[in-house]
Amino acid sequence: MPLPAPLHGVVPPVCTPLGPDGEVDTASLGRLVEHLIEGGVHGLFALGSTSEVAFLTDAQRRTVLETVVGAAAGRVPVLAGVIDTTTARVIDHARSAAVLGADALVATAPFYTRTHPKEIAGHFRRIRAEVDLPLFAYDLPVSVHSKLSGALVRELAEDGTLAGLKDSSGDEGGLRRLIVELGGRDGRATGPAPHFSVLTGSELTVDAALLAGADGVVPGIGNVDPAAYVRLHDAALAGDWKLAAREQERLVALFALVDAGPEADMGRGSSALGAFKAALWLLGVIDDGATAFPQIPLSAESVALVAERLRGAGLTPVR
Amino acid sequence: MPLPAPLHGVVPPVCTPLGPDGEVDTASLGRLVEHLIEGGVHGLFALGSTSEVAFLTDAQRRTVLETVVGAAAGRVPVLAGVIDTTTARVIDHARSAAVLGADALVATAPFYTRTHPKEIAGHFRRIRAEVDLPLFAYDLPVSVHSKLSGALVRELAEDGTLAGLKDSSGDEGGLRRLIVELGGRDGRATGPAPHFSVLTGSELTVDAALLAGADGVVPGIGNVDPAAYVRLHDAALAGDWKLAAREQERLVALFALVDAGPEADMGRGSSALGAFKAALWLLGVIDDGATAFPQIPLSAESVALVAERLRGAGLTPVR
Amino acid sequence: MPLPAPLHGVVPPVCTPLGPDGEVDTASLGRLVEHLIEGGVHGLFALGSTSEVAFLTDAQRRTVLETVVGAAAGRVPVLAGVIDTTTARVIDHARSAAVLGADALVATAPFYTRTHPKEIAGHFRRIRAEVDLPLFAYDLPVSVHSKLSGALVRELAEDGTLAGLKDSSGDEGGLRRLIVELGGRDGRATGPAPHFSVLTGSELTVDAALLAGADGVVPGIGNVDPAAYVRLHDAALAGDWKLAAREQERLVALFALVDAGPEADMGRGSSALGAFKAALWLLGVIDDGATAFPQIPLSAESVALVAERLRGAGLTPVR
Amino acid sequence: MPLPAPLHGVVPPVCTPLGPDGEVDTASLGRLVEHLIEGGVHGLFALGSTSEVAFLTDAQRRTVLETVVGAAAGRVPVLAGVIDTTTARVIDHARSAAVLGADALVATAPFYTRTHPKEIAGHFRRIRAEVDLPLFAYDLPVSVHSKLSGALVRELAEDGTLAGLKDSSGDEGGLRRLIVELGGRDGRATGPAPHFSVLTGSELTVDAALLAGADGVVPGIGNVDPAAYVRLHDAALAGDWKLAAREQERLVALFALVDAGPEADMGRGSSALGAFKAALWLLGVIDDGATAFPQIPLSAESVALVAERLRGAGLTPVR
Repeated sequence: MPLPAPLHGVVPPVCTPLGPDGEVDTASLGRLVEHLIEGGVHGLFALGSTSEVAFLTDAQRRTVLETVVGAAAGRVPVLAGVIDTTTARVIDHARSAAVLGADALVATAPFYTRTHPKEIAGHFRRIRAEVDLPLFAYDLPVSVHSKLSGALVRELAEDGTLAGLKDSSGDEGGLRRLIVELGGRDGRATGPAPHFSVLTGSELTVDAALLAGADGVVPGIGNVDPAAYVRLHDAALAGDWKLAAREQERLVALFALVDAGPEADMGRGSSALGAFKAALWLLGVIDDGATAFPQIPLSAESVALVAERLRGAGLTPVR
Repeated sequence: MPLPAPLHGVVPPVCTPLGPDGEVDTASLGRLVEHLIEGGVHGLFALGSTSEVAFLTDAQRRTVLETVVGAAAGRVPVLAGVIDTTTARVIDHARSAAVLGADALVATAPFYTRTHPKEIAGHFRRIRAEVDLPLFAYDLPVSVHSKLSGALVRELAEDGTLAGLKDSSGDEGGLRRLIVELGGRDGRATGPAPHFSVLTGSELTVDAALLAGADGVVPGIGNVDPAAYVRLHDAALAGDWKLAAREQERLVALFALVDAGPEADMGRGSSALGAFKAALWLLGVIDDGATAFPQIPLSAESVALVAERLRGAGLTPVR
Repeated sequence: MPLPAPLHGVVPPVCTPLGPDGEVDTASLGRLVEHLIEGGVHGLFALGSTSEVAFLTDAQRRTVLETVVGAAAGRVPVLAGVIDTTTARVIDHARSAAVLGADALVATAPFYTRTHPKEIAGHFRRIRAEVDLPLFAYDLPVSVHSKLSGALVRELAEDGTLAGLKDSSGDEGGLRRLIVELGGRDGRATGPAPHFSVLTGSELTVDAALLAGADGVVPGIGNVDPAAYVRLHDAALAGDWKLAAREQERLVALFALVDAGPEADMGRGSSALGAFKAALWLLGVIDDGATAFPQIPLSAESVALVAERLRGAGLTPVR
Repeated sequence: MPLPAPLHGVVPPVCTPLGPDGEVDTASLGRLVEHLIEGGVHGLFALGSTSEVAFLTDAQRRTVLETVVGAAAGRVPVLAGVIDTTTARVIDHARSAAVLGADALVATAPFYTRTHPKEIAGHFRRIRAEVDLPLFAYDLPVSVHSKLSGALVRELAEDGTLAGLKDSSGDEGGLRRLIVELGGRDGRATGPAPHFSVLTGSELTVDAALLAGADGVVPGIGNVDPAAYVRLHDAALAGDWKLAAREQERLVALFALVDAGPEADMGRGSSALGAFKAALWLLGVIDDGATAFPQIPLSAESVALVAERLRGAGLTPVR
């Protein structure tokens, strides 16, 4: 389906359910897509960091994208992560995503290698030139270890290379400057890049991002409670900022489930992903809460803490 | 004067005007305090990072605090930064600040040395025990190179060690979690630390912080345009978030004056401080825009850019 | 060929010559391998960071490895980098490398994702279990953004998971502790991991590493002057440390060619790789000095500086 | 006493013994100086990081320097750390050190504030101009959070601002480049800065640094076993690199005493300092192993581990 310009609303990064054998559980993935669309989301982001894209083989990535596109069935657009170290490898993924029916691509700056803004600009321009799909830049310094500057994003927005930005940098001040420089929150139609979409990945301050003029949000915990982010978004659209803040606060409290994993024994990343998947399993959406190897699984005790947090937010575990 | 509990509103970190000889220009500092109080601010933070505290000798620090306390004359409370590497040195500054009439203290975690949360907790408790003034923790990882965790701040809020937090960490998600865990935005009176004050140093997202339940803001650029932050704060108090956002956007545009300095030739810090002081000089508030040695001064060209930004924001240079 | 245990000597990370079209220039790569073997090296490391592995598609990686294995023709062992974000993707590369005739594998810890020592241990053990080739851990925090602790390397050395370590962490003190704990420099046969090979990637302090008991070196600039590293290694083996230091100093002076690129316009990585390849082109070993996209090419002026450095070291450009 | 140019040999950073009340124990400090001079050291570095300078008040700093200068009694030169955030504060310490009889000053780049190489150059030049004592630059990125570039150090060496460098950056490759560029290991008299002294703080690779042409070492654990570093230095001077390496290996094994502290409960810094001081207490050199507040003290169990390490190195605890 053609992507709205700018893309807006709630676009969760879809978790990738895995079976006990580590393979993609397509039935669970289909159910998760249904859960999200029923929750009212405006788009789906497959093969992002929260999808454990870095852990999936090329074959598994194809299976995931095929499943999400098929399950979405044109009801909402599907953005595909094309995450790899540098341009040529990213383009291989992008070509595959185009064939499988993705509506847009999401790429980071080069990583593993040290790089430079001029090289990053060339990187995005080459991807855009090689594969004819709207391209989103994914700013995720915690993984990529460089930050996309506002000046670079503006340049690539204004020349049409980028259709949008998925900002998970945590630099809310920098994002605010970018939005103001791109033409402000209300005046999008008159700014220098009116079709450019700003999506925040900062899922604990979405009310703030929408107040600042962001177009939407890509919330990891939106896998668990998509309807709450849709309510938050609707309240913001209606100008009811008090209600938006209240919805956000409820989600902040729910988000504490990511602390369930004993950090002493596992990575910060596997703790959060494990908690999201445990929640989806507890809610009956997916059949297994397993995360990809070599991430350490949540203990039974941690899963119990996740269940407690769900109940605290009024979500009822079925297991 | 007794500090309101929680302290709230606009509490700018007061710049320290210097003469051509590098000494504190007390006449200019007095005028700056007047400029801020006339702008409607709710408190003054002397000897913070924006005050160039790290560049001032002990004698100069005393001069600054004496001048600010004298000029404030009890109209608004004065918080005093007591910035030094570790506990014993901080306590020396704190004793001096108490003698000079500060209404509260602001201290960072130990720096230069590597440290640990248990040591940081001991540090704040010892300062609080030794000098009987309300104590604010100053979270500034860009200078201190460690981050105060939400858990640690909560512990020190709940046991009464801290009267508040000045959060310049840029971690808005973490701050949101802290506020929710402390008892939420409206329910401050019923939370676990009802008198605890959360002040943000993220001057580009103040509307967001207030929507999230922060009590106030410590904006560096509030030296230049204090009245704008007061209008922003008033709009937020009145629940007019659209107006608050518009005021914030104007301040975001004005803030671009910190880019005036040629970063190739000077530190990021001296660029911002130099621009704030150039603006105050252009507006006729202080007599000289000099920053402390060894910071590289702004060029005439950069000062002209600052003037342009001021005019863009409707502030009229008088030089 | 069976890998010596421990592997020792000079094992350069083989550059990947590219044509103007960005494809692997196998003829040049064959000549480079010949240049290295004629220089007396003890092994070849294909598909490492200096080989621009992060820029090569899977097809190009296969071409490179096939070419290097073919050109080496069993005269020296070939280690193959299997660089990717996490375990399943690394294993895909490892299977391919085994089929193509690699003598050993070189893998990093997971990257892009945040990880944990227990997860890293599982990662290496799974790779070792799945593909039956000696496995080297590649410690490269500048790319991987985590550091392999000495305790973890020892654990994996002692249980036979790892055949060796390629240490490019720059933490020479930590490496010294590891070597002492593994059984010391002379007493390798009696230490806890007698067959374990320690290779340093710190190409400017190889005399020091060999004095400390390292088994060998993986020098990027060894592409340009392999014979010099072999002389350094021979001097060290003969106990002539003064001569070893003199050879090292000559190589340190030569290494300054990596400063040729204007850092303002390109990444630090592309500057060094571009200089190595320019040197190989100037010396007539390869047909084109191009680096992989999106790295910024060296300017003609920078290439002239590289030529000057070569002449300063007594190496004569032929172009 | 006049400082040798270049200063060379073993120059330990003298620990600061504290009493149970946290005050400087001058009797123990005097005995420690005697212990070091009897061990054969070539100089003393008072008020460095290992001296807990960041924890000492200005009054305590004066007491320490007075005691060390008095105890040294002209037998070896005394270098005084003048550690503070920026130039004016450093100069205050430097003036005090000159009055108290220090033979040279050791200063870092500005910290707490963000800075720039041009500002750092101005900083060192101003200190040198204001206080007429030989000035050493102290490169300690783990505390200062910026790195002195080789180019900057060379510039300040060649124009006479700096008498030397104390390099604790851990960047051994960069140090090697600097030494080569300054004129090499043997040819010091003919290089561009023949009187410039390069001292390494990398106490686990001193043989390597001396082989590379460094003039000396500032080893923290040299407080515990100064004679061993003197033997290492003598072996290196005599060209017996095998013996130098063996002495270094023994010291590497001894150094493991810094792991005694449970890192889960204390900072990495306090663990190492606590272990050095526990060792000095166990050996009967000082009366109390206390570290400065707020560092967490070593447990009795940790002290027992330190004692074990001492015995393993042939040093006999007397308590």
